[in-house]
This record gives sequence, structure tokens and C-alpha cells, in this order.
Amino acid sequence: MTESRDSSEAMEAFYRQIGAKSMDALWRRAMGGPRSPDPVAPYQPGYWSGKDIATFIQRAGELVQPGPDAQRRVLVLANPGVPFGSATHTLFGNVQMVLPGEVAPSHRHTSSAIRFIMQGEGAVTIVDGEPVEMNPGDLVLTPGWSFHGHVSNSDGPVLWMDSLDSPLIASLRIGRSEQYPDDLQPATRPSGDSLNRYGGGHLRPKWQREASRFSPQLLYPWSQTEPALHQLARTEASPFDDVAFEYTNPTTGGPVMPTVGCEIQMIRPGVHTRAHRHSSSVVYHVFRGHGFSIVDGVRIDWEAGDFFSLAPWCWHEHANSGDAEAILFSTTDAPVLEALALLEEHPHPGSGYQQINATYAERYGGTVAA
Amino acid sequence: MTESRDSSEAMEAFYRQIGAKSMDALWRRAMGGPRSPDPVAPYQPGYWSGKDIATFIQRAGELVQPGPDAQRRVLVLANPGVPFGSATHTLFGNVQMVLPGEVAPSHRHTSSAIRFIMQGEGAVTIVDGEPVEMNPGDLVLTPGWSFHGHVSNSDGPVLWMDSLDSPLIASLRIGRSEQYPDDLQPATRPSGDSLNRYGGGHLRPKWQREASRFSPQLLYPWSQTEPALHQLARTEASPFDDVAFEYTNPTTGGPVMPTVGCEIQMIRPGVHTRAHRHSSSVVYHVFRGHGFSIVDGVRIDWEAGDFFSLAPWCWHEHANSGDAEAILFSTTDAPVLEALALLEEHPHPGSGYQQINATYAERYGGTVAA
Amino acid sequence: MTESRDSSEAMEAFYRQIGAKSMDALWRRAMGGPRSPDPVAPYQPGYWSGKDIATFIQRAGELVQPGPDAQRRVLVLANPGVPFGSATHTLFGNVQMVLPGEVAPSHRHTSSAIRFIMQGEGAVTIVDGEPVEMNPGDLVLTPGWSFHGHVSNSDGPVLWMDSLDSPLIASLRIGRSEQYPDDLQPATRPSGDSLNRYGGGHLRPKWQREASRFSPQLLYPWSQTEPALHQLARTEASPFDDVAFEYTNPTTGGPVMPTVGCEIQMIRPGVHTRAHRHSSSVVYHVFRGHGFSIVDGVRIDWEAGDFFSLAPWCWHEHANSGDAEAILFSTTDAPVLEALALLEEHPHPGSGYQQINATYAERYGGTVAA
Amino acid sequence: MTESRDSSEAMEAFYRQIGAKSMDALWRRAMGGPRSPDPVAPYQPGYWSGKDIATFIQRAGELVQPGPDAQRRVLVLANPGVPFGSATHTLFGNVQMVLPGEVAPSHRHTSSAIRFIMQGEGAVTIVDGEPVEMNPGDLVLTPGWSFHGHVSNSDGPVLWMDSLDSPLIASLRIGRSEQYPDDLQPATRPSGDSLNRYGGGHLRPKWQREASRFSPQLLYPWSQTEPALHQLARTEASPFDDVAFEYTNPTTGGPVMPTVGCEIQMIRPGVHTRAHRHSSSVVYHVFRGHGFSIVDGVRIDWEAGDFFSLAPWCWHEHANSGDAEAILFSTTDAPVLEALALLEEHPHPGSGYQQINATYAERYGGTVAA
Repeated sequence: MTESRDSSEAMEAFYRQIGAKSMDALWRRAMGGPRSPDPVAPYQPGYWSGKDIATFIQRAGELVQPGPDAQRRVLVLANPGVPFGSATHTLFGNVQMVLPGEVAPSHRHTSSAIRFIMQGEGAVTIVDGEPVEMNPGDLVLTPGWSFHGHVSNSDGPVLWMDSLDSPLIASLRIGRSEQYPDDLQPATRPSGDSLNRYGGGHLRPKWQREASRFSPQLLYPWSQTEPALHQLARTEASPFDDVAFEYTNPTTGGPVMPTVGCEIQMIRPGVHTRAHRHSSSVVYHVFRGHGFSIVDGVRIDWEAGDFFSLAPWCWHEHANSGDAEAILFSTTDAPVLEALALLEEHPHPGSGYQQINATYAERYGGTVAA
Repeated sequence: MTESRDSSEAMEAFYRQIGAKSMDALWRRAMGGPRSPDPVAPYQPGYWSGKDIATFIQRAGELVQPGPDAQRRVLVLANPGVPFGSATHTLFGNVQMVLPGEVAPSHRHTSSAIRFIMQGEGAVTIVDGEPVEMNPGDLVLTPGWSFHGHVSNSDGPVLWMDSLDSPLIASLRIGRSEQYPDDLQPATRPSGDSLNRYGGGHLRPKWQREASRFSPQLLYPWSQTEPALHQLARTEASPFDDVAFEYTNPTTGGPVMPTVGCEIQMIRPGVHTRAHRHSSSVVYHVFRGHGFSIVDGVRIDWEAGDFFSLAPWCWHEHANSGDAEAILFSTTDAPVLEALALLEEHPHPGSGYQQINATYAERYGGTVAA
Repeated sequence: MTESRDSSEAMEAFYRQIGAKSMDALWRRAMGGPRSPDPVAPYQPGYWSGKDIATFIQRAGELVQPGPDAQRRVLVLANPGVPFGSATHTLFGNVQMVLPGEVAPSHRHTSSAIRFIMQGEGAVTIVDGEPVEMNPGDLVLTPGWSFHGHVSNSDGPVLWMDSLDSPLIASLRIGRSEQYPDDLQPATRPSGDSLNRYGGGHLRPKWQREASRFSPQLLYPWSQTEPALHQLARTEASPFDDVAFEYTNPTTGGPVMPTVGCEIQMIRPGVHTRAHRHSSSVVYHVFRGHGFSIVDGVRIDWEAGDFFSLAPWCWHEHANSGDAEAILFSTTDAPVLEALALLEEHPHPGSGYQQINATYAERYGGTVAA
Repeated sequence: MTESRDSSEAMEAFYRQIGAKSMDALWRRAMGGPRSPDPVAPYQPGYWSGKDIATFIQRAGELVQPGPDAQRRVLVLANPGVPFGSATHTLFGNVQMVLPGEVAPSHRHTSSAIRFIMQGEGAVTIVDGEPVEMNPGDLVLTPGWSFHGHVSNSDGPVLWMDSLDSPLIASLRIGRSEQYPDDLQPATRPSGDSLNRYGGGHLRPKWQREASRFSPQLLYPWSQTEPALHQLARTEASPFDDVAFEYTNPTTGGPVMPTVGCEIQMIRPGVHTRAHRHSSSVVYHVFRGHGFSIVDGVRIDWEAGDFFSLAPWCWHEHANSGDAEAILFSTTDAPVLEALALLEEHPHPGSGYQQINATYAERYGGTVAA
């Protein structure tokens, strides 16, 4: 025991000295996370009403145009608990709208993106020269550093969920971007090219032998996904997710992109799943139906058009409160955690069901739509 | 230079002495293959007429029954150049028939098997407790050491190609087999179970995360394969195979089983492919159409129902000589060679087309049907 | 063109409305990184003088003790450009000291850690029950969620570099930690256990077949590393790093841990390397010798005991300015970027050598030691 | 039940008819292996006395020379149970001798080879331009299709075990070979090149990032292997193999070559291992000591210089009957079976020890040395 240990003055002098040399004392800091092996969610869940989104994106259609005013007419769903201003700390869950005749000019960026089409037919995205037609329920991929632009020949608004790994890329501090020289990159491949190659089941064009980190199939059409959900329902379901698929990269059987996993799940009428938690975060879009999720004891009611997002480690369970199937599309950073040996999942230790202590509005305030 | 090197008597004495001790002199042997870097096919191609097969399998239907007389009513296509008596040195390409009401009892063996349905509806194979319905053009997998038995409720004969890795397993000297205690293993999973899980596109049941060496999808239905071929045809084709797929394991994107690769190709009217060769061997079944292949200068004419097989290293090219699409299903040991870093492929160095020097019958004799 | 696009008032009202609902407009934000495909370093390089470190850690030895005052007596090297207060945005590069007789109590955390021993013999770290002796130049691994505690029977101070992935874990928001119930986890395996299994060259105990994501070899002794550098020097060197190794996981041949790569390099007298840049960040410790690095045109002089760190994308080259070999040990997040398909490297496009525009002190201020 | 099923005449006619068309009836054949799930060894173990080998290889030195008389002066150890005339059905276990001043000319072949040096110093093999010095106990690799030639500047005979996958390559029917234009391929890399890169522990030259199917380290020196065995002995041992390593490919942590695994084991004085069996076959060389193995109840006594080989599935256990360590080097086809999902291993179900029913000579005849 030295004299100075009792001396807060000596300690403060020390801290000033080392601070002047760009050093710090580790013992002054909280060490990585809570002082307990039991993990807790680092931020609140997010919830956004589909009615609000519809109102605001329509108003955005009056206020700004892609190109002259904005690269993209995109509403960011900004979880108040996430400093980056995104749905989770690794993922954007945004909403984009393109109106008839509009062009969102081609650009590319380090971030990888997916689109899940919410409404409208007749829009096309051109990804590295391949035009991809978009219809409700379709999943479309834009691998990182691929040029992509959008154009709509629809007779009405086309809306989709935009989920990107931008918050992750920002935390990795490596992002860059590039504008395409012209407005829209021209098509250099026929429409449907990648689906023609990979869309017909577990078959691989014989000459395409190499596995690729990004799925070469750019479109996962709803016309395949919907019947697949009904087929799977005949067989087995997860206690935590009911009838649920992960979209896969046909060349590896793994996630569609290294940083963004995509999942689709159908919660059948009457189903209330058991609770679990995991180290991954998730952004959900309610594509059909209505129901609720219980997240760390807070009830989040949702219906078609809504979005909600989950932080790592929150306990969560889902229930369908209607008479029809509820369909949730979601993106997740689970592939990131899996790649880094950091993915963990725990079933709820008790009955498997949580107490409801509050509604989302009661707990997190008035930002929630009625 | 010693005295004895000229002395054949001394050499012979030496050879006798070492022979008595289970030794040999390497210099007396030809060293592994030809003394040239240019590889040659180690045996002739095989060809079997569909008309002969139909005649003989029908006669076999009169002569033997599965169960009492034979485990399986199977015609072996025995390439005269292959000592094992099989289509190639690693693969069986056999034909099996089950008649209405028959049961082929359940058993299992080290060998992995595939079936490609040639004719008839209403038969079922039960693979590890999963009943799989079989219709023409379907591919069905039986992974090694899986119990499997067949039963037919059809009103006519059901025929399929049986391709197994038995010659390979025999050369590895590790095979064993087991009879199921009862006649037919009962169904413990619903019909269509694996297709319900994996058959709906590139989607993976969320709870089945592990990759498996054998595809968990047991059925690749023709109702998916046929439209996939037409979709692929819109996009790209191989100069060597025209429109061609490899069937894949959905959990890896690789071959359906470690020892047997499966491929389907459509040679369009008017197409004559370029020649190449590879270290893998292939067994072809002509599912539709007619045409010919040129194999090391020998023309093999083929039509629906026929089989032919290729040894490693033979130059080969294919042509459709009809007005309709020709469909070739094939099995190959390419996955074996790939796994052992022994797979090689060479395009034909010249024009890409071979001279035809003879027909199959002219070169290899009268065993070929008119 | 609508009336309201000119109306900043309408826009502001819109932004208020969506803000109240936890939404934002993407077009108000800068999109992920610079509007140029040419990436730039997102923050300044770090530099810390070994003399300062020695002075301060000695003073810390008077002020705090492990256990009662501090979990660990650790100086954090806090790059002023990194908000987390660490050497880079993904890696800590800290310095720890243990004095004779001290015990740093056992704990575990999500973060993975490495130690590189700078000075002193006779300290031991116990990692998941295996005591590991530490000597200068040794690399010791502490995989994530492994209990570890330190004890010193040395007759003098023992210092090491502590590099952890804590900033990355913090950005992934998943960290947790646990104190061991007692002061120090007891040894349950013999000292040297993992080195006895894996330390003797490229040989694997026959019964340990599974690959593991974390290297099972916990100690990479300097007694092996130093002669390996001299052996490699006889053969080949990198234009960018001179004689350089990555430490590997013997079960995969890949990085020692999924989130922290470790490298050792010897810059020989007279060598001045060419410049390159990459998307990964690096923390360097100068173990021996002296020289300088040029980082985006800024000259950083360094000598044994110093540390410096590089942000993603900065151009950098190294030179030995002495008569003896310079040895740099470094940790990097390259394995993270590689796992996410985000690792890129570019050689300097020009001569390969940069202009020096300033010294570190001139550019970044007086925090640099003389 | 048809009339003809009882008619052997009708059956014979049928067999003749199909035979004429290159077909066979599967029900006439034994189906792949025994009709029992309990596998049995397909052939006897091999045993060759080191004294015989020494006598015969010395005589071969008088009778033939590399180059003029023989590509290689090699004695083949030909297990009488293996039709190919090799130690096992997949592996050669041969013995080669080079005398002072001799050159074994460079050639290459599809087969991969390893050498394990038995006696003599001062010989060099040049593998793809890299000269590799060979000393007793060293393991040297010759990946498939690499040019290799040998030259000796020793003052006495140099002997080594040559183990190649030639029987496997022959069964795959793909082998080819090529003579080097000149006698001996010249050195294009310095001696020790690959060991300088990879020989210093688990360190990878930073610029060599790609994993390769064949180990890039060509030499595994006894000077590393021997101390590694003693280090491992301090830690743990296998009940079936005592102190045992597999040599690994530093870029993958897996086997050194895709078709030939290499292992070294030390059976300590007094050790008698438990019995197990596996689907892989093994060729053993006794490098030091003496003892015996029990193989399917047959006792094989062995001492330094001897060879023995095991078929798939035989039960086997080993014992050291001397006062000094016994060292067994072995090659195995386990990597082949592992790559094809065919590797299985079973511990002996009973006490773990077999009854001895006979000696090798009693069971298999007088080819065994006293």
C-alpha cells in the first residue's frame, strides 16, 4: 500500500499526465459490457407504424424527387436507441418509394443492400447491368460495390423495404461510394438472367463451378417463396419462429451475403411461439396479417405494413392474433456474428413465455401509432 | 556396370528369391499409366440399346421376382472394358423394374445410389423412413448406409436407372450391407418430407443449420428440372454440353453425394457441341430425343431409352440429329476426383471437332442394336 | 416539380413530423463514406513513445494494484481520432504490468485478447486452467470467454502488450463479462500443455481431429519465432513488409482467432519498403530496433518500446534507419474483414514511395515524445 | 409365379442373351461386401522383414542401376492378398536405394509420393526445382505431377521408404507420367526453400495467403519430429496408438496430401494399446525399437527395419516388447475416405484386447523371416 493510493490528487495528476500523451487508465473504464455473465439488450426495440410510413412516404413523394433532390427517396427508420440512427446498430431498415416514370440514378457503395417489395408492380432495378423486375414479396439483392439504379414504368407508386449493412460498414470505417457517370447504368444482361441460371431448384449451371461469397441469384420471387412456406408448414416448424426459412446462396448453401441474412416466416393463426434470445439483431417487416411480439416483457402489436427491430440479447416471442397467416420478412446480422464465432442463441429458461409488463407505447412513449 | 547385369539368369534368380518373400522389383512393372503426358482412355465406351433393355427387362419380369428370387430385378449394363462388369470403373448404370404390387425388400449398403425414373408412375421408394413417389424424369437419392425398399401400386411396370458407386466402393474394399429385419421398412416420415423442406427454391428451414455431406433433399422432381432447362436455355450454354445443370446439395451448393454427381443436359435441335476430355467417367441415359456422340473418333448413335458410358480421358462431343430437344441424364465420379484434387478437363486443342473414323458397331462389334 | 420543393418551411415541417415518429430522411445524410471511389483514412495514425509508456506504467505501479484497485494495471493507448479511446476502431493496443508477487484475478469476457511480452520473465497467465509461462517476444492467446488471470513470481516488473477486440465487440453491442468466483482460477492442465501438443512443427495429435475457430495452441514462443524470421529471410520477402509472418491456427492454417490477427515482421538494415494501403487497421509494437514509417505523407519515427497504429486505407511504408534488425509485432482486424468479404489491398500506384510532408509531431501536435 | 422361374434352362438362355449384349443380371452377383453389417478385413495383413529387405536391396544394388536399367531401384512390398501387388489396395510401401554418385532421373506422374528416410545421409531429391536434403527420420513429399529426381553424394547407400498412391490411381484409371527431358531437373530454388518458409512453427509467410491442397512444406525433418514426440508424451496419448501425430499441411491443418496421410507414433516401453478397427488401410515402417501387433488375432512381431500393412476393418493393437521406445512411421488412405465421407472407426467392443490365435508365420506361411 503506497502513500499515493489514497491520494485522489495524485491520481488526478496521473490521469492528466497520461491524457496529455493520448493514454488512459483502463481501470477508470467499465470493461466491455455488464459485470454479469447474463447479457442484456443494449438498446430498446424499434417500432414503426405502416400507416405513418405510408403517410410520410407519400408526402416525401410531393417534396423530393430522386436525382435532382435526393439520390434516393428513402425514409430512414431510426431506432431512438441506436446512435447511428438506424433500425439496429448494424442494419438499416428503410422504406423507399419510386413514382411512375422516375429514375433513381445508378451508384455503388461498400454497403450491401437488399430490397423486399412492399407494394406496386412495374419497377425495375438494374444491378451490375442485370435488370431485375420487382413485384410484391420479392427479395432482390444488391451485393456491395455493385452499381444499381432504379426505374419505374408502373402506373402507381412502388414501395420497398431497403435494408443495408451501412451501420456496420460505418463502424468498420471503410465505406466509400461512387456515382455512375450517367444517370442509369444500361442493361448489359437480359432481364431475369440470374433467375434463369439459379431459379429452378437445386441445380447449378454446369460451367459455373466456383462458390461466390455473394449469391449470384439476385431475385428470390414471391411466387416461389409463398408456396415454399406452405409446403414447409406441412412438415415441421420452429418453436421460436413457427414456419421459417433463411434465403440461401445457391453456391454455398449459406447466407445470401456475408453481412446481411434474410429470412421469411409465416406465423399461422393461433400460433404463439416460445421465447428465445440471440446475439444477433433483426429488422422485421410485417408483410401480411397482424399479431404481436413480446420483447423483454413489452408487447409490440403489429399489422401488415409495420416494421419493428430487435437489439441483441432481448428475449422475444411472436403471436398471430388474427384469422389469417401473418408473414414476417426480416434481415439479420447473424451471418456477421457466425463468421466471427460470436453467434449465440438461448431458449428462454422458464416456461418459454414471458409476462407482459407494458405495451410499446407505455414503455417507450408516444412515437407509436395507434 | 556389374557382371550380373547382363546375366538374365542372375536376374531371374533374384526375382524368384524376392517373390518368395512377397516382394517384387518395380523396374519389372510398367509405371502408373502410359509413358506419355498425353492421357488416353483406359477402356472403350459402353453402349446399350434401349430396345434391348426393354426386351430383357420385360423377360426378367417373367423370370424373377424381387424378394423370393432376387433382392432386386436389375439388369447390369456391363461395359466389356471394365473388369468389375459395370458401366464405368466407378459407377453402375443399371436398369431396375418393379411390377404392380411388387415389393423390393428394404436393405442398406455402403454404396450410395441414385435412381432416375424412366417409365411408369405409382411406385414409391422408402428411404430411411421417408416415402418418395417416383415419376418419369425424377431423380431420387439413396445416400450410403440408408435403408431403402421399393413398392409399386402402379398399374404397369415402373423402370428406372439405378446408378451406384459400387465399383468404387469395391475398389476401396470397405463395403458391407444389411438386410432390413422385415420386408419393407415402414414409413416414419410423411411422403414428400424432404421436398417440403428444401424443394421450394434457395430457402433453408431456419432450424436446419448444419451442412451435410449428403443432400437432405431426396427427390429432384422433373416438374422442376424441365422448366429449369428451358429457363437456362434463354441465358447461356456450354460449348461442350449445351444447356446443362449439375444437381446440387442445398446445404453446400456442391454435389448431391460425395461419390456420385448427377447432371442433366438438353441438347437443342441443330446443336453439335465441341469436344473435350476429363479425368472423370460418365454414365449417360438418353431420356428424350435422338442424336449421336463422337468418342475418340467413334460415332455412337443414340435415342430415347439408350445408355452409353465414357471412360476417363476420352475425347467426346455430342450432337442432336432430330427436330426435338434431346435430354441426357448422367452420373459421374467427378466429385470423387475433385475431392482428391485429381479432376482435370481439357478442351480439344484443334478445331474442337473430331473426325469420325468408325461407328460403335464397326469398332467394338455386334453387341450394338441396329 | 411541386410547389413545396422550394419551400424550406415545408421541408422543415416534414422533418419535424417524421422525427417525432423516429424516422429520418436519407437524403439529409451523407451516404456511407466519401463521395469518391478513392478511399481515405477515416482517422489519424496513433503514436506512443516507449519512454512515456515506461514512465507511466512505473508510476501506475505505485498508484494502483491489480485486485484491490483495478482489475488490471493497464494503460490504454488512446488514438485521439478513435471515439472509443483505443489504438484503432476495432483493436485495443494496451500495456499491462504485473509486479513481483501480484495476482491479476481471473475473469472472462466476450472479447478475445492476445499478449505480446515486452519485458520480464517469471510471470504466468492461466488460460482456461492452463498455466502459460511468458517470456519476452512470446505471443499468448486468450480466446473470447476463456477465464484468465495472471500471477508473477518474477523478481522484477513484467510488461506486455495487451491487444483485444473490445472496440469491435462494443460496436457489435454484444459484450458481457464474468468474474471468477475466487481470485485466481487454479491450474487444471500442466504448464506447456498446448505447446506440447502443437508446438513441434506441422504435426497434429492424432486424436484431435476437429478444426477449431480459435487456435488450440496458446503460446507462440519467441524461441521459435526469432529463428523462423531468420530462416524466412533467406528465401523471400514482401516488398511492403520485408520479412513477415502471420501467426496461424494449426487446425486451419488461418488466423489464430476470428477477430484478431497477429503478425511479426523483421525489417532488415537498409530496407525501405514500398507503400500500400488496405481496408484493415493495425496496431504495431516495436520490439527491437529503430526506424520510421511514412503514413499518408507523415513520418513517424519509432524505436524499441514504441507503439503506433494505422487506420484503414492509409498509405504506409516502413524503413529501418539503424544497423540492426528492427522487429515489429502487430495485431490486425484483417481476419474480420476477410470473413466478411471486405478485405482489400492496393499497392501504391506511383513509384511506390511517398513524399514526406511532415513529422508526426508537426502534423498531430505535441503529444509525441522527442 | 411363372412357369419359367423353375426352369434353369430358361434362366441360362436369358443369361446368354443378355451377356451377348454386354448386360448381366444383378441377382447373380454378390452385392457389395458381406451380407452382414459387421465388416471384415478384405485381405490379410502384410509383413516384410527388414533383414530380408536389406539383403535384397543390397543385391539389387549389384544387379541394376537407376537410369540405364531401371527408372528407380525399388523393391515393391507386395501383400499376397492385394491383386495390384502392393502393401495395401491403395498404397505402395516400397523401399528404394541410391548408391554414392548415382542419379535417379527426373520424371513425374499422377501419383503422389512420400519418402521416409531409413538410412544414410547425403542424398538429395529435387522436387519441382527445390533440392531437399534427406536424413534418417525425415519425411519428404512429392505431390502428384511434380517432377522429381534423386542424386546421392553420400559415401554409402541411402535407403528410404517410398509410399505412393499408385494402386488408388490405378483403380481410378487416370494415371499418366512424363520423363524429364534431361537426366535430372536442375535446382531452381535454394535447398531448404519450403522449410525456410513453413518450418518454423505455426507461422505463414504473410504474402502466401492461399490454402493449397498439397502441403507447400516438402520436408518434415526428424530433428523436429523426434522432440515433438517427446513433448507430446508429457501430455496425452491415444489408447489405440500411444503417442501419435499426423503430419499436417500448414495451409489447411489437414493431411499433407489429398490421397496419402502420414503419421508417426511412439509406443513407449511397457505400453500395450487397445484394439480398434477403421475403414482405412495403413502401411507401417518400424523406424526404431521392437514389439508386436495383434491383427485379427494374429501376432506380428516386428523390429527396426521391418514393414507391415493393415487392410481395412482388421482389429489391431500394438505393443512395445523392448526397453526402448518403438517408433512407427505409417502412411494411410484415411484422407481419401474422409474426403468421400467413408471414414469410420470402431473401438474394440470387449475388453479392448484380442486373443492371440497364431503367429503371422503360422497363419500366413513361411514368407516371414525368423
